[in-house]
Amino acid sequence: MFNKNNTVEILCVGTEILLGNIVNTNAAFLAEEIAKMGLSSYYQTVVGDNAQRLEDTLKLALSRSDIVILCGGLGPTEDDLTKEIASKVAKKELFMHEESRKRLEEFFEKRGHKPTENNFKQALIPKDSIVLTNNNGTAPGVIIPYEDKYMILLPGPPVELKAMFNESVVPFLRKISPVIFVSRTVKLVSVGESRAETMIKDLIDAQTNPTIATYAKTGEVHIRVTASGKNEKECDSLIKPVIRELQKRFGNNIYTTHDEVSLEKSIVDLLLSGGLKVTAVESCTAGMVASRLVNVPGASEVFKYSFVTYCDEAKRKLAGVRKSTLDKHTAVSRETAEEMVKNLDAPLKSDVCVGVTGYADGEDAGHVFIACNVRGNIEVREFNFFGSRLNVRESATTQALVLMRDCVLKYLSNLALS
Amino acid sequence: MFNKNNTVEILCVGTEILLGNIVNTNAAFLAEEIAKMGLSSYYQTVVGDNAQRLEDTLKLALSRSDIVILCGGLGPTEDDLTKEIASKVAKKELFMHEESRKRLEEFFEKRGHKPTENNFKQALIPKDSIVLTNNNGTAPGVIIPYEDKYMILLPGPPVELKAMFNESVVPFLRKISPVIFVSRTVKLVSVGESRAETMIKDLIDAQTNPTIATYAKTGEVHIRVTASGKNEKECDSLIKPVIRELQKRFGNNIYTTHDEVSLEKSIVDLLLSGGLKVTAVESCTAGMVASRLVNVPGASEVFKYSFVTYCDEAKRKLAGVRKSTLDKHTAVSRETAEEMVKNLDAPLKSDVCVGVTGYADGEDAGHVFIACNVRGNIEVREFNFFGSRLNVRESATTQALVLMRDCVLKYLSNLALS
Repeated sequence: MFNKNNTVEILCVGTEILLGNIVNTNAAFLAEEIAKMGLSSYYQTVVGDNAQRLEDTLKLALSRSDIVILCGGLGPTEDDLTKEIASKVAKKELFMHEESRKRLEEFFEKRGHKPTENNFKQALIPKDSIVLTNNNGTAPGVIIPYEDKYMILLPGPPVELKAMFNESVVPFLRKISPVIFVSRTVKLVSVGESRAETMIKDLIDAQTNPTIATYAKTGEVHIRVTASGKNEKECDSLIKPVIRELQKRFGNNIYTTHDEVSLEKSIVDLLLSGGLKVTAVESCTAGMVASRLVNVPGASEVFKYSFVTYCDEAKRKLAGVRKSTLDKHTAVSRETAEEMVKNLDAPLKSDVCVGVTGYADGEDAGHVFIACNVRGNIEVREFNFFGSRLNVRESATTQALVLMRDCVLKYLSNLALS
Repeated sequence: MFNKNNTVEILCVGTEILLGNIVNTNAAFLAEEIAKMGLSSYYQTVVGDNAQRLEDTLKLALSRSDIVILCGGLGPTEDDLTKEIASKVAKKELFMHEESRKRLEEFFEKRGHKPTENNFKQALIPKDSIVLTNNNGTAPGVIIPYEDKYMILLPGPPVELKAMFNESVVPFLRKISPVIFVSRTVKLVSVGESRAETMIKDLIDAQTNPTIATYAKTGEVHIRVTASGKNEKECDSLIKPVIRELQKRFGNNIYTTHDEVSLEKSIVDLLLSGGLKVTAVESCTAGMVASRLVNVPGASEVFKYSFVTYCDEAKRKLAGVRKSTLDKHTAVSRETAEEMVKNLDAPLKSDVCVGVTGYADGEDAGHVFIACNVRGNIEVREFNFFGSRLNVRESATTQALVLMRDCVLKYLSNLALS
């Protein structure tokens, strides 16, 4: 049984992380999920596929934290040592878990492969532990009790780890906890983090339950509201008034109050609700705006085509920018951005068009104009972004989405008023 | 003085990593660079902005490794503790480093800001240590000697950390080392990691100096060749014959033998060398191919425009795919892919066109056709990719670049023969 003050430590096992061949996204995923559940985490460690160092690190983690989540090292090879070391530390023998063995056989049969004896090493489970089913791979997870603490062993591949954490570990942590934590994220655009913090300083200063914290993302600010209570219903009823208060203060700057909704998803939903089709004319972002929209499942309902007009001639021939405009104002200007989005009729009819033109490097790197046209109403914004070529292009992409959202919202609310 | 067996440990400081708000890319960068230098690293740790835990973790790291690289916590706020704790552990007092103080004043003056007293905390340096200039921000780095070991303190922002590591830490590590290590990466496409390993098994088995190791990346395999020697020249002369042998074995599958060259950069160079202009007609990748090409500085010499043809009508109107082809074979077919790239003349003249059409989700998710046309010579490839919507689109983008490269290489070598 643990309470709010109990702690979770993340221990990732794998020489490939120590060699820098892969970025440790598992640690970031677990850390965020743990924080959302209201649990504290003070350490993350990475250790290679080495028995002694893994044992030392695991013992240290168990000496200072209540729950140790180990990721990786559950594979079939001799290098995979996590289960062996954890069972040694817990003094629990490994035995062949028949159900897991059967699942493995079925897994290979389905794929027409013959398992080797090595593969069945994955079905060995320490005594008195809880087996976590792996619906996306071969290695089952395990929860091993250790004194009044727990080791939770998860497979390394992110797809397997995430699913297993959500399906099995979250319910387990909820079950052993006398209180549960529920978290919701309010996501904002067009407000900087420090302004957002100032606007809710009174709420942050007065916070007890729920707690409120802000986080900066590229072009966005996220406010996480976390409540603790006896059950989900109690937590929800604590969170709701805070969300309502945030909505009152930030209004349309909030694009969602749901964790799983991205900025582009909120825009696709907005376009769907207004029955609007969107297109893009991109220069320096060169397809990044289109690509983010298309990453939303169902985007085909609102997005049909777009242009990348990287050279001046393409801006003229594809988007209809006049030669005189380019000559007089250059390709990176308010006037050019405006003309890039003027044409909503050809080659296919659209209701919304966003255009981006700017310098990704060179002397004027970061100077970008973004225009948006919603059925004839055009707005242009000017930006000076910092950072690398890719940073500038990513910032411009996010701000193109933000402008698109602002313009569509304005159009829809004018429509409702008229 | 350290030798091959001495070890480097990475200790990242920051509550935002423990909360999962940022992914720890600094650790991956440092780990990779350290491995490239031939140095070993057995542990990575993350700890929050907490004095006691940072002190304990630093002492532990110094007890088991020879060089500890600390990242983050060099900012001007009270939360930034790294320098204070490191100087306490090293028993070296902090003093105001006049040169750093002056740099800070200049930094703020240039931007028209007035520094607060807090800001000058960044110019406090532990006695007897080496100051590392920060050319991209305000916090200088520091190298603090500790017994026969070193602590190396670097700023947290990746842009600052990377530049400082390359400019100051690499030369330092080289200087204190009796032998130096030089590493070069040979990058391959169109060969799987296990096939690549089999093809050089004899070299790997016989390796002593240089060492040879393979790494899998999305659609690519990297082979790292690392030599140790008295100086760079000696290392280079050890590496060169291995690179030549790899070139003999892998031929055109190697797109570069230089670390800093990406696949898209090698393609832009190839197009430049042939005086060829490229365009793209993208459906499921929706701008990702164009975007990767444009991320190469100077891409404007070879890339002028491209289309995202997400719906059937756009495939017809923009790329000239016939209605009968779409009706008979559907949008995701060899025939449609081929027609997507047929037109090299309008609206602007191109020499190379790549087309991508496929399913990013749904029942047939991952089924993708990619076509490439080089001055009338068309090749089409069919793929079945795995993973999420984004994974499928990223894999398709990489394979579109690979096909483009193969087709252009074939065209240029035929040209040379005729």
